[in-house]
Amino acid sequence: MEGSVAGPAFYDIRASLDETRAYAARVLAHFGAAPENARITAAALVSAEADGLGTHGLARLPSYSAMVAAGKIDGHAVPSCRRVAPSVVAVDAGNGFAYPAIELGLPLLAEVARETGIALMAIRRSSHFGVAGQPVEKLAVDGLVGLAFSNASASIAPWGGKRAVFGTNPIAFATPLKGRPPAVVDLSVAKVARGNILAAVQRGDATIPEGWAFDPEGNPTTDAKAGLAGTMVPMGEAKGTALAFIIEVMAAALTASTFAFDAPSFFDGKGPPAAVGHVVIAIHPGFVAGDAYLDHLERLAHAIETEPGARLPGKRRLVNRARAAREGVTLGAALQKALAGMGFSG
Amino acid sequence: MEGSVAGPAFYDIRASLDETRAYAARVLAHFGAAPENARITAAALVSAEADGLGTHGLARLPSYSAMVAAGKIDGHAVPSCRRVAPSVVAVDAGNGFAYPAIELGLPLLAEVARETGIALMAIRRSSHFGVAGQPVEKLAVDGLVGLAFSNASASIAPWGGKRAVFGTNPIAFATPLKGRPPAVVDLSVAKVARGNILAAVQRGDATIPEGWAFDPEGNPTTDAKAGLAGTMVPMGEAKGTALAFIIEVMAAALTASTFAFDAPSFFDGKGPPAAVGHVVIAIHPGFVAGDAYLDHLERLAHAIETEPGARLPGKRRLVNRARAAREGVTLGAALQKALAGMGFSG
Repeated sequence: MEGSVAGPAFYDIRASLDETRAYAARVLAHFGAAPENARITAAALVSAEADGLGTHGLARLPSYSAMVAAGKIDGHAVPSCRRVAPSVVAVDAGNGFAYPAIELGLPLLAEVARETGIALMAIRRSSHFGVAGQPVEKLAVDGLVGLAFSNASASIAPWGGKRAVFGTNPIAFATPLKGRPPAVVDLSVAKVARGNILAAVQRGDATIPEGWAFDPEGNPTTDAKAGLAGTMVPMGEAKGTALAFIIEVMAAALTASTFAFDAPSFFDGKGPPAAVGHVVIAIHPGFVAGDAYLDHLERLAHAIETEPGARLPGKRRLVNRARAAREGVTLGAALQKALAGMGFSG
Repeated sequence: MEGSVAGPAFYDIRASLDETRAYAARVLAHFGAAPENARITAAALVSAEADGLGTHGLARLPSYSAMVAAGKIDGHAVPSCRRVAPSVVAVDAGNGFAYPAIELGLPLLAEVARETGIALMAIRRSSHFGVAGQPVEKLAVDGLVGLAFSNASASIAPWGGKRAVFGTNPIAFATPLKGRPPAVVDLSVAKVARGNILAAVQRGDATIPEGWAFDPEGNPTTDAKAGLAGTMVPMGEAKGTALAFIIEVMAAALTASTFAFDAPSFFDGKGPPAAVGHVVIAIHPGFVAGDAYLDHLERLAHAIETEPGARLPGKRRLVNRARAAREGVTLGAALQKALAGMGFSG
C-alpha cells in the first residue's frame, strides 16, 4: 500500500457520480469521519464537482481530510436540531462537518416555513458551509423560496481600511420556477476568488490583473505576492463590504458564532474548530402571492431569457450537472497523489 | 398669490425640521393627499433630507405632488394590514404612498417577530419605497434585526443583455448595537445613481466617466446621452445583476406586484399606479444568540471601528442627522419655484 505513493502510479480517472461519491466517502472515513458524516459530506462535494464548482468539490478532499484527522472537524459529531421559537430552528453542528447539520435541519425548516410562512434555521459550531446554493436549491425544489448566509475566514478589509475583517462571505438565493428546476443565485462578495491569486503565485507569475487585490497597506496592487499578503477587493467596492457586513451579522452574530477575523483557515488541520455559523431562511410564497406566484414569476423569467446574451441565474450549473450525470467527473492524478501522500491508499 | 410665481421672489430658506415637515405636508395636502398621508410622507422625506440623502428628500416633492395630483398615487388611500400566516403580515397600500403603509404594518411586524422569532411583511399596491434604511432602522431601534427589499422602474439589464429589466433595486439591513444607534446598510445595485447621468446631460456634459453606463446596444459608453438612453452598470458587474434578481423576486414576485420592467416612472404623473411591492423581514436576535447578541456583535463593530479609515455602516447619516437637528435644512429657491409653477402658493 505504501508503494502506491510513488509518482507514476497515478492517472486521471473518469468515474461515475456514484463511484465518485463512494470514493470520497472512503477518503473521509479513512481520516476519521463516521460513515454517515462521510457519506453526506461526500455527496455534497460530488454535487459541487458535478455542477462545475470545482473549488468546492473534490479539491476539498485533502483539506477536509486534514481537518478531520486533526480533530479540527469532529468526524463523529452528531448534529442536533431544535425548534427554539415558533419560526426558528436551531441546529448545533457539534464542531463537525456542516453538511450533516444542514441535512438534519432542512426538512424541519421547510415544515415550519409551510406552517408559519417564513422560518429561520441558525446553524452554529459548524465548519466550511460548502456551496451556499445547495441548501436553498433544495428548499426551492420543495416549493419554497430560500436565502442563505455564511461567513468564512477573513480576507476582505472594511472599506477604507487595510486589515481583513470579513470573509468572502457568500449569499445564496433560490426560487421555484414553473415546471422546471429552480433559479439559483450564489455569490461571494469578493470580486474574484482568492484562489486565483494563490494560483498566480504558485505558477510564479509576478503580477495579477488590476482590481483583484490590495497590498498589506491597503493600496491597490498588481503584485501577486503583495496581493496574497494583503486583502481581496470586494465586488462593487464599498457596496461590497456593506454586503459583507450584512452577511457577517446574519451568519455569525445571529448564531453566536466565530467572526471571520477570528476564524481559522478551512484549508489545513491547524488550530481549534472554526465554530462558524450559517443562517438559512425559508419562505412560503403562497401566503401573499397565492397560487399565482409561479405564473407571475414566469413574466420575469421570460423577460430575462428573451434577452439575447442573458440567462437565468443557475443555468450553467444545470448544464454542467446534466453532463456530469452522463459522463461522470474526473478523479485527477494530483488529487489521488495528494491523498496517497497523506496516507490514503484507496 | 399667482404673483409669487415670478422668478426673483424665491430665496434659499434655512428651516427647522419641524417647519420643513409642516411645509412638506402642506405641499402634499395641496395636491390632494389626506392630512394623515401628507404628514407621514412629509416626515419620511424630511428624515431623508436630514440624513443627507437628498435624492430621496425634499427634491421628491414636485414628483410626488405630480403623482398625487394625477391620481397615480391615491392621496386618500387608507392602507390595511392583516396577519395572513403566523409569521406573515400582508399590507395593502391601496395605491397610495408607501410610507403610511409601512408605518401601519411595522408595529405588527415587530410584535410578530418577537413572538415567533422571524416575521415577513409584504406590502403591495405601493409606490416609491423611499429610503430603504428607514424601516429597518426603526426595527433595530426596537431591538430587532431588519432586512428590506424593494424594486423600482427598470434601468439595469440582465448581465449580457441590453434591455433594462431590473430597477436600481435597494436592499437595506439594520441591527441594534449596544448602547448606541443601530448600524444601517442601505445600498442600491446600480454602481452610481442614474441621477448622476441625468445631471451630466442637463449640464450639457458630452461625457460621463467609464463604468457608469451601457449604451442602448449594451456596450460600455462614456457618451452621456447614450448612457441616459441605455442602461446602468450594476455594482460588481454580473454579481450585481444576480443581486438585483434576488431583490426583484423578494419585492415583486413574493408580493404579487408589478415587476421593474412593467413599472411606470416615479418622477411624473403619467400612467397607472405603480403597484410595486416591498418586503421587510424582522428577526428577533435573542432566540439563538440569546442576551449575548449585543456583546458579541461589539467584537465585530470594534474590529471595524479600530481600523483607520473604516467606519460602521450608517455612521455618515448620523452625523448629518445631528447637524440637521441643530441647524435645520435648506428649502431651496429652485424647489419653491418648481412647486409654485405647479400651483402651490405656500
